[in-house]
Amino acid sequence: MSLVVIGSVAFDAIETPFGKTDKIVGGAATYASLAASYFYDKVKIVAVVGDDFPTEEIADLNKHKINTEGLQVKQGEKSFFWAGKYHNDMNSRDTLVTDLNVLADFDPIIPASYQDCEFLMLGNLTPQVQQTVISRIKKRPKLIVLDTMNFWMDIALDDLLKTISMIDVLTINDAEARQLSGEYSLVKAARKILTMGPAYLIIKKGEHGALLFHEDKIFAAPALPLAEVFDPTGAGDTFAGGFIGYMAKVGTVNFNNMKNAIIFGSALASFCVEKFGTEKIRNLTQQEIASRVQEFVSLSRFEL
Amino acid sequence: MSLVVIGSVAFDAIETPFGKTDKIVGGAATYASLAASYFYDKVKIVAVVGDDFPTEEIADLNKHKINTEGLQVKQGEKSFFWAGKYHNDMNSRDTLVTDLNVLADFDPIIPASYQDCEFLMLGNLTPQVQQTVISRIKKRPKLIVLDTMNFWMDIALDDLLKTISMIDVLTINDAEARQLSGEYSLVKAARKILTMGPAYLIIKKGEHGALLFHEDKIFAAPALPLAEVFDPTGAGDTFAGGFIGYMAKVGTVNFNNMKNAIIFGSALASFCVEKFGTEKIRNLTQQEIASRVQEFVSLSRFEL
Repeated sequence: MSLVVIGSVAFDAIETPFGKTDKIVGGAATYASLAASYFYDKVKIVAVVGDDFPTEEIADLNKHKINTEGLQVKQGEKSFFWAGKYHNDMNSRDTLVTDLNVLADFDPIIPASYQDCEFLMLGNLTPQVQQTVISRIKKRPKLIVLDTMNFWMDIALDDLLKTISMIDVLTINDAEARQLSGEYSLVKAARKILTMGPAYLIIKKGEHGALLFHEDKIFAAPALPLAEVFDPTGAGDTFAGGFIGYMAKVGTVNFNNMKNAIIFGSALASFCVEKFGTEKIRNLTQQEIASRVQEFVSLSRFEL
Repeated sequence: MSLVVIGSVAFDAIETPFGKTDKIVGGAATYASLAASYFYDKVKIVAVVGDDFPTEEIADLNKHKINTEGLQVKQGEKSFFWAGKYHNDMNSRDTLVTDLNVLADFDPIIPASYQDCEFLMLGNLTPQVQQTVISRIKKRPKLIVLDTMNFWMDIALDDLLKTISMIDVLTINDAEARQLSGEYSLVKAARKILTMGPAYLIIKKGEHGALLFHEDKIFAAPALPLAEVFDPTGAGDTFAGGFIGYMAKVGTVNFNNMKNAIIFGSALASFCVEKFGTEKIRNLTQQEIASRVQEFVSLSRFEL
């Protein structure tokens, strides 16, 4: 039994109101697998990098017990590179550079040892590649979580809708939920999206927390109010990774477990934004995570 | 013992993406006193209207057991009139018309029968008038709640800061908290504002709920996700009225009671936005309020 994470493993250059980085390691699969690794020790990655990707970075993933057999290294090619600049509200950003490089013709390889996949995290990528991964895993996983973004709604909506029809949990932000559904009200947006395939919808609202929709039930998770948000990059991927990592740990798919998974995912995401890139989520202790989760409890509990 | 509410009693004309009204009855004190009246039966209003204000509207406040002895009716003058148009996100709006009329030289009269005031709600008004009310209540109330807005920060900051130094609870929205403190992070903003006088700060975030700050504690209340938000006008005043009405009912000022007061205030506000103006909050039952509050419990509760 394992948790397979597919997504980019890449370089980012990030500018926020608080600072700027050179090329640092990023990518949806990097963030998500690191986050998941704190809950589950059979995390396996499917991704592609160029020969410019530092081997010590791969070794660091392995130190987190992340299996990188499915991480292809393309000789003579370059890794995906993204550069972006955040606005003051930290909820919106401009993309400055997107060099697809190895991602342009990414053909995901699912090693035989990954066929025990029970939990599948489809990180943000071309919907077509996400579909390919689903089709190449022979036994339908118990839970498929899909993360995507407005970019694919703009240029590959039909592919995206097909992929969405094949999954269990969709995670998008509020603007994307509105775009995908054509509904302004998030309740109406959720109702529509839940008819497109997924039984669960998570709407991520950055500093405002997240909403989980399932049938007629809604759960609102707060975000931890933070004094410093250095860099929101990867927060969504970290959230998704923590979410599915927790689900893999508990093993049973239901609304109550998902509520907790959202809290654990949010806790991981709250660490992620405290430093640039993956720096903070590479070196967490279980004690730190447990006490961060307790902050979410104190933050939201009231006794009538 | 009583709860005194000061603020505008006025006419509004409202345009939202979902519709448009003619002149309807509004005003901070109208919304706040109606909301408070569901929790406490000694609500007393201090306000001013012109002779254009319908007497049946005043009678309707009295039907809610709201004492209107402090509501001055100025013969030959017109009531305050505000017209506004909401943007698509319903969290921001443009003011189209502000006719101060009777508010221009409002000299608040505190009837002798109001001197038993224990809970004082200073609805959005000139900070100078809010100060006058504080000075005219002889015994310092147990709890003073102040609602204000960016407008007074722009044109009367010194007066506003003085008023803020005299109160216990400040309620503003997130943009206003940032403006008042000069800090982008709401945590840092709150830390600064809590040095300005109030022991409690409530930051209202519209569809994203509210945050309560006190010493080093934070409580995050969700907003109820609604399928239809017809009109956000008065939601903040309704929230504040429900909040202080609940505090007056329980009588003891502490963080835990304030958490619950925020949930009750949010519940009232969630009704308010379902119809234009005060329509919905004029005709609520205790049963409706109790079941709405239970929705907040289901929405936010998780069991680790």
